[in-house]
Amino acid sequence: MTKSAAIHSFEPPRRTLMGPGPSDIHPRVLAALARPIIGHLDPAFVEMMEELKSLLRLAFLTQNELTFPVSGPGSVGMETCFVNLVEPGDKVIVCVNGLFGTRMVDNVRRCRGEPIVIEDAWGEPVDPNKVEDALKHHPGVKVVAFVHAETSTGVVSDAKTLAEIAKRQGALTLVDAVTSLGGSELRVDDWGLDAVYSGSQKCLSCVPGLSPVTFSPLAVESVKKRKHPGQSWFMDLTLVLGYWSAGRRTYHHTAPINALYALHEALVLLAEEGVEQSWQRHRAMHERLKAGLERLGLDFLPAAPYRLPQLNAVRVPAGVDEAEVRRRLLTEYDLEIGAGMGQLAGKIWRIGLMGYGARTENVERCLSALAAVLGH
Amino acid sequence: MTKSAAIHSFEPPRRTLMGPGPSDIHPRVLAALARPIIGHLDPAFVEMMEELKSLLRLAFLTQNELTFPVSGPGSVGMETCFVNLVEPGDKVIVCVNGLFGTRMVDNVRRCRGEPIVIEDAWGEPVDPNKVEDALKHHPGVKVVAFVHAETSTGVVSDAKTLAEIAKRQGALTLVDAVTSLGGSELRVDDWGLDAVYSGSQKCLSCVPGLSPVTFSPLAVESVKKRKHPGQSWFMDLTLVLGYWSAGRRTYHHTAPINALYALHEALVLLAEEGVEQSWQRHRAMHERLKAGLERLGLDFLPAAPYRLPQLNAVRVPAGVDEAEVRRRLLTEYDLEIGAGMGQLAGKIWRIGLMGYGARTENVERCLSALAAVLGH
Repeated sequence: MTKSAAIHSFEPPRRTLMGPGPSDIHPRVLAALARPIIGHLDPAFVEMMEELKSLLRLAFLTQNELTFPVSGPGSVGMETCFVNLVEPGDKVIVCVNGLFGTRMVDNVRRCRGEPIVIEDAWGEPVDPNKVEDALKHHPGVKVVAFVHAETSTGVVSDAKTLAEIAKRQGALTLVDAVTSLGGSELRVDDWGLDAVYSGSQKCLSCVPGLSPVTFSPLAVESVKKRKHPGQSWFMDLTLVLGYWSAGRRTYHHTAPINALYALHEALVLLAEEGVEQSWQRHRAMHERLKAGLERLGLDFLPAAPYRLPQLNAVRVPAGVDEAEVRRRLLTEYDLEIGAGMGQLAGKIWRIGLMGYGARTENVERCLSALAAVLGH
Repeated sequence: MTKSAAIHSFEPPRRTLMGPGPSDIHPRVLAALARPIIGHLDPAFVEMMEELKSLLRLAFLTQNELTFPVSGPGSVGMETCFVNLVEPGDKVIVCVNGLFGTRMVDNVRRCRGEPIVIEDAWGEPVDPNKVEDALKHHPGVKVVAFVHAETSTGVVSDAKTLAEIAKRQGALTLVDAVTSLGGSELRVDDWGLDAVYSGSQKCLSCVPGLSPVTFSPLAVESVKKRKHPGQSWFMDLTLVLGYWSAGRRTYHHTAPINALYALHEALVLLAEEGVEQSWQRHRAMHERLKAGLERLGLDFLPAAPYRLPQLNAVRVPAGVDEAEVRRRLLTEYDLEIGAGMGQLAGKIWRIGLMGYGARTENVERCLSALAAVLGH
């Protein structure tokens, strides 16, 4: 009963990951992950953490002091932003144009805030005019929350304009950049974004399980002025701050050390390439994929100006069994692409070109496998 | 500005970790960690997850269906237990005999529950008589929460007796087994524990960042009967259940795939050795360390019956600069031992013998380094 050797070591199959994330991991990142562990209060680790924060500032294009990786997946990053910025009774405009917008609404409710929901169709960007109208009709809105790059629909919204509108009315912005960070234009300081969260497993091509976040001085001030303590111990920034601040290092929790080695290496790779150069590479690979998909007679869900280069939402042609196509790609070609989610289930495929996965070899591999499976 | 190669790959120093965790990682676990990533909805991954749940049941000695690793550190496991079991107004007895007990009180308050705090001195176990009295004086207590193995003091409390007392009064038990799982006797089903959380980086010798949890059918029933939805989206078991249940696999969050490979391998190692055999090994290594420490004139904080074999809380002798000793062990011997926390800061060292670290080689290494630094 207490001794069993019936279960053996797990040897994963070799896949090419071209879904909505996780993306393929660069060999240098996997090598960093497996380096020997050291203590989370070791001076060498503390130094690495300081470098990691600098590298994240580079990736986010921000000078924000409070920039660090949350020790949890992107959804913990999302919740960290909401539980710190939203107090009971606070009015929060939430722009919903896909699955992750609906999750934001849920977060506001659980913080006992008052969500003001602005809806756009799945596949459309957030309409800035609706946000402007909502701000006029609802005085005293504290936060405007929106998804920059909707992973469920492959759509980018105009974060710069949305932030300008929010600022004019004195509201903070809370932004999901899970899929945009490192893959397409994102300028936290230039655009004036206040609380931004991302994920490690998309365009940074790191292991899943970390959520880089950054908070503007205005957002930090708002957290410090809270009337009620946050509802989460783990996500309370006033506690986390003591751990991630240089010179303090109050024990908070045991950091996921090896995953942080990997994130450090993924960000070194990004710094070596250059952030803007990485955006350009994603764009170039998207153009290549798009040309090939068009040759196969496939088209995109979003209109051209709103397409994310790193996440291509492609309509499933009439009469095609979409799940069977994905199953054959996986089993015959070891190639993973993503399904549609929520109201788009069965209607689209999501083809990711993220980070290390955004390269010619992957584009060609995907196009030839799709051509074979679709019978072209 | 956006391109910088000033920061290079991080190469950690080689350390021997004999603090309160993280512990040294078995080479097989590090190798598993660095295997190629696959998707979190890949059939091969789903199969691995089912094995992982079985292996966790073996480690916890439970048949509980709801047994899985939370995608976050032990403190997220703790918070997951509280936010699901405690509703506003619920009375919760919290036994405090160290740092992690005080954290439990904070959790109850943030859930808007009513904590009834029972205190014992740091270094003493929880007194079952006080719990029994508190249950008599406070009718309608929903949960009795306590720390099985206090990582801050090296003390084990009598979880079996505490659970019997709670059960007699119809209360659920919520138990911190972060440091006990795999290292000393823990029998979830035999003892009737209802909600138990642990950590991956202690006696399982896996990477930090995962928190194995298990919930009894009674605990699950209590979660299902909640009047209010939980305050956390990420930790809401009613949502997580859809992801971790066989046959459903509703998307919830992207699991930390590589860390889960590592946990799977760590648990395979535990199964190969046998759970009870692992407890015995920790006990034997503790005896060896204890004999050596006594030769150096060092003694323990807790009385003999309450000492955790895997976490040895040793009094700092009068006149010794404890931080300097730790600094020299780290810099001259690449050996990490832990400091005291909270009210025990400066008064004790914490020497861990956890998982892969609980072996003769480490005991001898620690004793000889300590002897040299203490000038014996």
